[in-house]
Amino acid sequence: MNSYKLSEIAAMLQLNYQGATDPVISGAGSVTDAKPGEIVFAEKIEYLENMTGMPAALIVPMDFETDIPAIRCENPRAEFTKVLSYFAVPVDSVIPDGIHPTAVIDPGAIIESDVAIGPFCIIGDGTKIGSGTRLAGHVVIEPNCTIGCNSVFYSHVTIRERTIVGDNVILHSGVVIGSDGFGYHPSATGLVKIPQIGNVVIENDVEIGANSCVDRSTTGTTTVKSGVKLDNLVQIAHNVTVGEHTAISAQSGISGSCSIGKGVVIGGQSGCADHLVVGDGVQIAAKTAVTRDVEAGKTVIGFPEIEIKKGYRIFGLTRRLPELFKRVRDLENLLSKSDKSQE
Amino acid sequence: MNSYKLSEIAAMLQLNYQGATDPVISGAGSVTDAKPGEIVFAEKIEYLENMTGMPAALIVPMDFETDIPAIRCENPRAEFTKVLSYFAVPVDSVIPDGIHPTAVIDPGAIIESDVAIGPFCIIGDGTKIGSGTRLAGHVVIEPNCTIGCNSVFYSHVTIRERTIVGDNVILHSGVVIGSDGFGYHPSATGLVKIPQIGNVVIENDVEIGANSCVDRSTTGTTTVKSGVKLDNLVQIAHNVTVGEHTAISAQSGISGSCSIGKGVVIGGQSGCADHLVVGDGVQIAAKTAVTRDVEAGKTVIGFPEIEIKKGYRIFGLTRRLPELFKRVRDLENLLSKSDKSQE
Amino acid sequence: MNSYKLSEIAAMLQLNYQGATDPVISGAGSVTDAKPGEIVFAEKIEYLENMTGMPAALIVPMDFETDIPAIRCENPRAEFTKVLSYFAVPVDSVIPDGIHPTAVIDPGAIIESDVAIGPFCIIGDGTKIGSGTRLAGHVVIEPNCTIGCNSVFYSHVTIRERTIVGDNVILHSGVVIGSDGFGYHPSATGLVKIPQIGNVVIENDVEIGANSCVDRSTTGTTTVKSGVKLDNLVQIAHNVTVGEHTAISAQSGISGSCSIGKGVVIGGQSGCADHLVVGDGVQIAAKTAVTRDVEAGKTVIGFPEIEIKKGYRIFGLTRRLPELFKRVRDLENLLSKSDKSQE
Repeated sequence: MNSYKLSEIAAMLQLNYQGATDPVISGAGSVTDAKPGEIVFAEKIEYLENMTGMPAALIVPMDFETDIPAIRCENPRAEFTKVLSYFAVPVDSVIPDGIHPTAVIDPGAIIESDVAIGPFCIIGDGTKIGSGTRLAGHVVIEPNCTIGCNSVFYSHVTIRERTIVGDNVILHSGVVIGSDGFGYHPSATGLVKIPQIGNVVIENDVEIGANSCVDRSTTGTTTVKSGVKLDNLVQIAHNVTVGEHTAISAQSGISGSCSIGKGVVIGGQSGCADHLVVGDGVQIAAKTAVTRDVEAGKTVIGFPEIEIKKGYRIFGLTRRLPELFKRVRDLENLLSKSDKSQE
Repeated sequence: MNSYKLSEIAAMLQLNYQGATDPVISGAGSVTDAKPGEIVFAEKIEYLENMTGMPAALIVPMDFETDIPAIRCENPRAEFTKVLSYFAVPVDSVIPDGIHPTAVIDPGAIIESDVAIGPFCIIGDGTKIGSGTRLAGHVVIEPNCTIGCNSVFYSHVTIRERTIVGDNVILHSGVVIGSDGFGYHPSATGLVKIPQIGNVVIENDVEIGANSCVDRSTTGTTTVKSGVKLDNLVQIAHNVTVGEHTAISAQSGISGSCSIGKGVVIGGQSGCADHLVVGDGVQIAAKTAVTRDVEAGKTVIGFPEIEIKKGYRIFGLTRRLPELFKRVRDLENLLSKSDKSQE
Repeated sequence: MNSYKLSEIAAMLQLNYQGATDPVISGAGSVTDAKPGEIVFAEKIEYLENMTGMPAALIVPMDFETDIPAIRCENPRAEFTKVLSYFAVPVDSVIPDGIHPTAVIDPGAIIESDVAIGPFCIIGDGTKIGSGTRLAGHVVIEPNCTIGCNSVFYSHVTIRERTIVGDNVILHSGVVIGSDGFGYHPSATGLVKIPQIGNVVIENDVEIGANSCVDRSTTGTTTVKSGVKLDNLVQIAHNVTVGEHTAISAQSGISGSCSIGKGVVIGGQSGCADHLVVGDGVQIAAKTAVTRDVEAGKTVIGFPEIEIKKGYRIFGLTRRLPELFKRVRDLENLLSKSDKSQE
């Protein structure tokens, strides 16, 4: 890993560092697990109280008091994100420059300059890969795909035919883009496969986690719009649109033909039934089963989904059912006595 | 893509087309997203009201009135499914004929004629592959498997040793068949692995979605019967049997030793606890947790599962718990007054 | 498969077998599906009542009465686990000795003696693999990893850079270790990726099922401790610790920064919200949504989680809501009459 003087880090961040000492920083950590030589960030003084280990330096708010050498700034979390990048393993050390001689590249593929292609990749006829894109080993891109610039695909990614992927897209290992949607037509002799002749478009700045799947549409296009982030093991079914900057956590699934808005946040293991419209800025709590359209800006939870404040209230009241049954029994007993006393 | 005159499409469907014009059809689309030159289907006139774009032609019921050139038929959806196949990318353009020279095929493997094997495939000793089957790149078939005819395995499929796969089976990218079942024996020093010495049988006409898993049995066989369709990211545990023509949606899981009947339909993210019997024709709503046997023909929903009409009623009443608590409180207040007034 | 005389199996188990006949045992099965020549175990005489087929021999408790040739012992299940191993396919027949000439091994990798490396594997610079470890085909181990001894990785496993894996670890096909955690920083222009500069440590005797994912931490280490068993399609997020001998069933997910204790058992499709502490010995029922810390030794179920006895009671009472609404209505009617009668 790299190391820097604290003053150098401040300069890279275009911030000031004024301290008695200028420690060498050899990594970045967290207040709960800081190792010697690391820089950590803290937004509140309380965070330091639980600190184990002793970091070499802090990134803190302007008015934060501490004896530890510290860079002060308006937004410690955002600055720390930049600092993390100074210590990250550069992608070209994991996916080195050049085209590995074992890659099987169709003569009809168009590979721009500065594309890195790892061992055992397969690139199909008519597929175009933009400048600066890096493919780790074992990436398969079927024919007639268009891949943008400066994207990174890790090992064992599959891109099926006619998929379009934008710039600065990160696909983690095992991702499958453009597999057939799940569509069958019932018949007397069983389920007849509906050919899935559409495709998938992944726009710019998308990141998709390991072993996630985005299915091609029956007709038309399954679209994952710019800036979308999908976690691991996520399922996006055929004919879905996921709006800009939406984030979907692990093991969630979006059923066929859903339209998910912009800036939506979906917790883990959630699901949307098919053909739903989820508005911009919606938040869906983890493990929620969305069964109806959700209006823009709403937050929902539960199975089936309900507005979150109502949901929490109902979760609480459900737990009080033993008490409620007893209270009703008590009322019944009282009335039964009352009835008798009036006889 | 191919293109056809509308009259040619009608002839391929063995249907009549009689219209003033005979447009060239260059693709198939949907009423909600039709592009010029596309053919779409509509079962009801209302579907055309929301139509965006303008298709070149329709497939519609016999008595359907429209000015757009149209093929009329008894079952537009079924005919459209056939039309989709006319525009599908042929599998041999994605998985071309022949055995790629980079494939590592054990001399003890038996490969019938007309098998297509892509780059970097591995075929183990004693494995037999039937005529017409196509393997995309990076498919691994371990020793002593038997693969039928005219099956298609996409990239990065793994078939573990002694698996049997039938004819006309489609396995999408990242599918793992025959991995060890999840079985351990508790001991003083931790969990002891129970060897999983059984195997998996995938019968004819099965399709399995991307990154789904079917585990080998402890002893005996995990069986996926003819015509079963599994979506992406589905888990079939050891010793399970899935009956003919059953369809299981994405991210659902069937626990060990379950017997799932014929023609069962399972929604996404559902789960069955182990050792259950789910009868023929059962329907399981999405996200349901099946915890007991389900009789043939039933439809269930919920956590734990309940008959669907009762389930919807209970979902509705659960949402009215705030009201019910208030009504009980009101009764208590009334009786408390009433008690006092009688004192 | 191998075959043994029953007396030989008894000797291998260091148990006695005294019977009139000494059948040849050619496999191991179960009482519900025993084939000729197989040995099965039965802990209770009732298990034999449902027996279909006729096994050649049994493993049974000491006092068990049967006419079938039987090995008697204190713990039939544990002994049967050993017997299964006598009939298992040896790993070296699936992953043969030696380093396949197609493997791409960086000159800076350190491969100890007796490591088996299958076709098309990729081993990065600075990665060290311990003696006796076996990699099936298509395994990718990125730079600067340390892999212990006698571990087995099946095909299409990906190990990202700087991961540490212990001894006797089994990783099934499609497993991804060390992919980036799901962390973003909101900004005016969308979600900014937080570099994930930590790593993953998988300790000894861990087994991870097909297509499961363990993400690298933001900083520090995501840790899967000794003896942990993860089923297929499991998600372990960044900065999580999973304690010794914990077992997590298929399609479950542990969100970021959770600390899961030792000996925890988690049913399928369960999830833990982020930053939770789950104590030692906790049991989490299938499909549970854990939203708060769980004390050591507790068993929980539900969405959100609740102590299991209370949970079952509430499931039962929830189903009786139609009755409760009716009882409250009856009370209201009675009081309404009562009120009137007092006017």
